[in-house]
Amino acid sequence: MKIGTVTGSVWATRKANCLMGQTFLLIDTGCGELVAADQVGAGKGDRVLLATGTVASRYCMDAPIDAAVVAILDQEGTHVRT
Amino acid sequence: MKIGTVTGSVWATRKANCLMGQTFLLIDTGCGELVAADQVGAGKGDRVLLATGTVASRYCMDAPIDAAVVAILDQEGTHVRT
Amino acid sequence: MKIGTVTGSVWATRKANCLMGQTFLLIDTGCGELVAADQVGAGKGDRVLLATGTVASRYCMDAPIDAAVVAILDQEGTHVRT
Amino acid sequence: MKIGTVTGSVWATRKANCLMGQTFLLIDTGCGELVAADQVGAGKGDRVLLATGTVASRYCMDAPIDAAVVAILDQEGTHVRT
Amino acid sequence: MKIGTVTGSVWATRKANCLMGQTFLLIDTGCGELVAADQVGAGKGDRVLLATGTVASRYCMDAPIDAAVVAILDQEGTHVRT
Repeated sequence: MKIGTVTGSVWATRKANCLMGQTFLLIDTGCGELVAADQVGAGKGDRVLLATGTVASRYCMDAPIDAAVVAILDQEGTHVRT
Repeated sequence: MKIGTVTGSVWATRKANCLMGQTFLLIDTGCGELVAADQVGAGKGDRVLLATGTVASRYCMDAPIDAAVVAILDQEGTHVRT
Repeated sequence: MKIGTVTGSVWATRKANCLMGQTFLLIDTGCGELVAADQVGAGKGDRVLLATGTVASRYCMDAPIDAAVVAILDQEGTHVRT
Repeated sequence: MKIGTVTGSVWATRKANCLMGQTFLLIDTGCGELVAADQVGAGKGDRVLLATGTVASRYCMDAPIDAAVVAILDQEGTHVRT
Repeated sequence: MKIGTVTGSVWATRKANCLMGQTFLLIDTGCGELVAADQVGAGKGDRVLLATGTVASRYCMDAPIDAAVVAILDQEGTHVRT
């Protein structure tokens, strides 16, 4: 799963009907920008975890979406199992 | 999801029967060109949102299509939640 | 969907049984070479449209194939809606 | 399947409900970092085998996950069939 | 589909139960190394054809595998239809 930072959002008046009501965020992944649907409630500056592909569509009720925010990261630490 | 700009369209007389009636647009994604089916009605110069993979096929009635225009962007602004 | 040019074909005597009878073409996509199953009848030099992933497999009767030629392009022109 | 090395883990309080109870590891794949769910029990420094895409989601009970650790490598040797 | 050359194999004692009995080969694809399950019987030095993604999983009885060897190439020649 990719990690990215929310940089803004995009708006589309003309779109597939099945996308009505979805929020689309602009995400900077460090190696390019992509758009992801958001149902978690991320805002600008949040570092988020993305699911892509069919997985994202299924998460968004089978809408034609191939990237979705599934989590907002607390921090990126290091966890060593002991 | 990728954002791209419509640069033209492609035509194919010889093709899979299940592609009959589909419109295929050339899309410049900033890092390469691809072809996407369009059922939203995008035209040259439009900035569009693309769904790729199985998601695109399902949106296009299970045709052998792996990229589809699902929205035409109004603008790319920044939306800060308050 | 990717556009590529057919540069030749590949042959495999030892293969998954479910690949029997499939034609595999070498395709130059401009950024690397890949192999795609062909049921449209493309030949060397043809510019073709490729479907990839599960979409290609489904088009090829669920064979373990992740790229397929689905159309032979007539030309790459520009189509402006008026 | 990609090979990567576990470099740490990520934590998210706000996330999709269906991700509750999953462990997410940071993985260095040599050409970038990604996050993968872990049900095998990998720890920092382990070299792991990753499954990606819908395959990973299915392995994780259809959660919105597109990368999962499916094995911890013993060693990377060379095996010649004789 | 990608073409690659078998360079060795990998071993994992700790792994998902559903991977028991699978052979995993290291494959050099020319632009990076990956691991693929092999049920065709490829050995070191063989040039092989790979299926990736859900397609590979389905070929391997729905195991959490996203790359599989599906053919061993005889030769890479050029085939012109006449």
